[in-house]
Amino acid sequence: MADIRVAIVGYGNLGRSVEKLIQQQPDMELAGIFSRRDSLDTLDPDTPVLPSAGFAEHTDKFDVALLCLGSATDIPAQAPEFIAHASTVDTYDNHRDIARHRAEMDKVAKAAGTVAIVATGWDPGMFSLNRTLAKAILPTAQQHTFWGPGLSQGHSDALRRIEGVRKAVQYTIPSEDALGSARRGEAGDLDGKQAHVRRCFVVCDAADEERIENEIRTMPDYFVGYQVEVNFIDEATFDAEHTGMPHGGHVVTAGDTGGFTQSIEYTLELERNPDFTAAVQIAYARAAHRLREAGESGAYTVLEVAPYLVSPTSLDELITRDV
Amino acid sequence: MADIRVAIVGYGNLGRSVEKLIQQQPDMELAGIFSRRDSLDTLDPDTPVLPSAGFAEHTDKFDVALLCLGSATDIPAQAPEFIAHASTVDTYDNHRDIARHRAEMDKVAKAAGTVAIVATGWDPGMFSLNRTLAKAILPTAQQHTFWGPGLSQGHSDALRRIEGVRKAVQYTIPSEDALGSARRGEAGDLDGKQAHVRRCFVVCDAADEERIENEIRTMPDYFVGYQVEVNFIDEATFDAEHTGMPHGGHVVTAGDTGGFTQSIEYTLELERNPDFTAAVQIAYARAAHRLREAGESGAYTVLEVAPYLVSPTSLDELITRDV
Repeated sequence: MADIRVAIVGYGNLGRSVEKLIQQQPDMELAGIFSRRDSLDTLDPDTPVLPSAGFAEHTDKFDVALLCLGSATDIPAQAPEFIAHASTVDTYDNHRDIARHRAEMDKVAKAAGTVAIVATGWDPGMFSLNRTLAKAILPTAQQHTFWGPGLSQGHSDALRRIEGVRKAVQYTIPSEDALGSARRGEAGDLDGKQAHVRRCFVVCDAADEERIENEIRTMPDYFVGYQVEVNFIDEATFDAEHTGMPHGGHVVTAGDTGGFTQSIEYTLELERNPDFTAAVQIAYARAAHRLREAGESGAYTVLEVAPYLVSPTSLDELITRDV
Repeated sequence: MADIRVAIVGYGNLGRSVEKLIQQQPDMELAGIFSRRDSLDTLDPDTPVLPSAGFAEHTDKFDVALLCLGSATDIPAQAPEFIAHASTVDTYDNHRDIARHRAEMDKVAKAAGTVAIVATGWDPGMFSLNRTLAKAILPTAQQHTFWGPGLSQGHSDALRRIEGVRKAVQYTIPSEDALGSARRGEAGDLDGKQAHVRRCFVVCDAADEERIENEIRTMPDYFVGYQVEVNFIDEATFDAEHTGMPHGGHVVTAGDTGGFTQSIEYTLELERNPDFTAAVQIAYARAAHRLREAGESGAYTVLEVAPYLVSPTSLDELITRDV
């Protein structure tokens, strides 16, 4: 079978991760990258770079477009224009707006005969899928989502605004106590403040440490009311250990089946957040292509896609080997 | 919408768990239990008990039959007879024979206009689904399945055959070292002996302990070559803590995305194994019913069922709330 030809739209962190990870897939090739910029410093200098404005003229060159655009404004504004011309997969992550986005993409995709898979990635995405399945299996269970250990950009920025802070990052980390309660089905209405620890790594002069720690712990909205850990480290350690983009989390579902606790947990530990988001998006490109080849059209969330459609392995081989 | 009416076929541990857990589902009712026995000690004495031989005459009373029969001989022999008359969900767990079983059920189901969902439960079942998705997302990753902590019936029997052993159980437990290696993507071709610890709890006279421990550690096939832990406990502790049917395990997938380790882990911790198998089987009854209502027929594994079909919540509400 011919490879699935994918195009990338947008070339930030996510687009660069997609470009890198397409190469790991046995049945895909990168047809080109659409960008508003004239030239890009791509991994492979031979990859065609095409103007986003000319998207509709190039749809003979690829099967599925991976929209690597921002969720804040780009996806809602631009995705409907792209789906009118080609199948797309996006990682739209504005949870409250996904239903509206899916409905709009569905309308345009059905008219155009294309397939959109929306809100892939891990949350929304793999976490959504696990929340849905676990709750269907254990309908009376408690379910909690924990995020982290993960870099929080907003909180890191807040630390860096404190006078005397030279470098700083903040990681959000699930509280071990809260995780334990959730696994035993005893977490009840746990809120985000109880469930997470805010761990800070700060580079500053030793003389400023006491004042800076106090300013952190008393910063309203960002740190007050949370479990906060402040670690002062030297610059070399910071540069060696704290410049990555780790993230991850847990979906914990624990229920009682008549006197017995049953716990389901899905855990992601990601050294590089955009790489994993890209990896999920790429896998769903396969499903978008196959659905369209099968004559389907419209918009789908990950909940609506049969799992075997995302695998490069044939259904027969999956059933023989993995089931 | 009217409740989904389910019937149970077979009344061992699994059938009893299904009977209990149907009550937790918001949209299902138990229509009756088919058994080869004349009378059953059911949870609800009003539940109709019907003869298995008369299955075909009662298909107007239920929408889906949950086949709670043994995988060794009953499912392969009897499931094709049931699917000829009604939609079914089974927990067939003979991994090497699932492709053949699915093909046979598919043929009969398509001729009868019914829907069979085969090999549900957790392994095969939820573990299969997680193996497939994780490998599709991280195609170059290492993937390992660990089982336990779980009661091993065969090994517990072997312990009880040793002279002087009054009571004994053996749990198979994933090795923490092996789990750690798998999570870091460094486990390579780990085999089952390295990956698991065999933990024994034995009740015997103190004078016999040394001899019994030696007999356990030198027992070929069962214990030689494994990490073995032997714990001697008193009878009261045994009766209080070691008469359950716990099980569970981990599917660990760890891959490299160009210099970064990404790890996906799905964990089950089950205080009662048949209850959880039943809970998964029940959820897939919903999918079987919906697929048939939509005009589909044939046999499906969990890989072929879109996740939202197993949830009691409507797709619109899932997208708004869980995605």
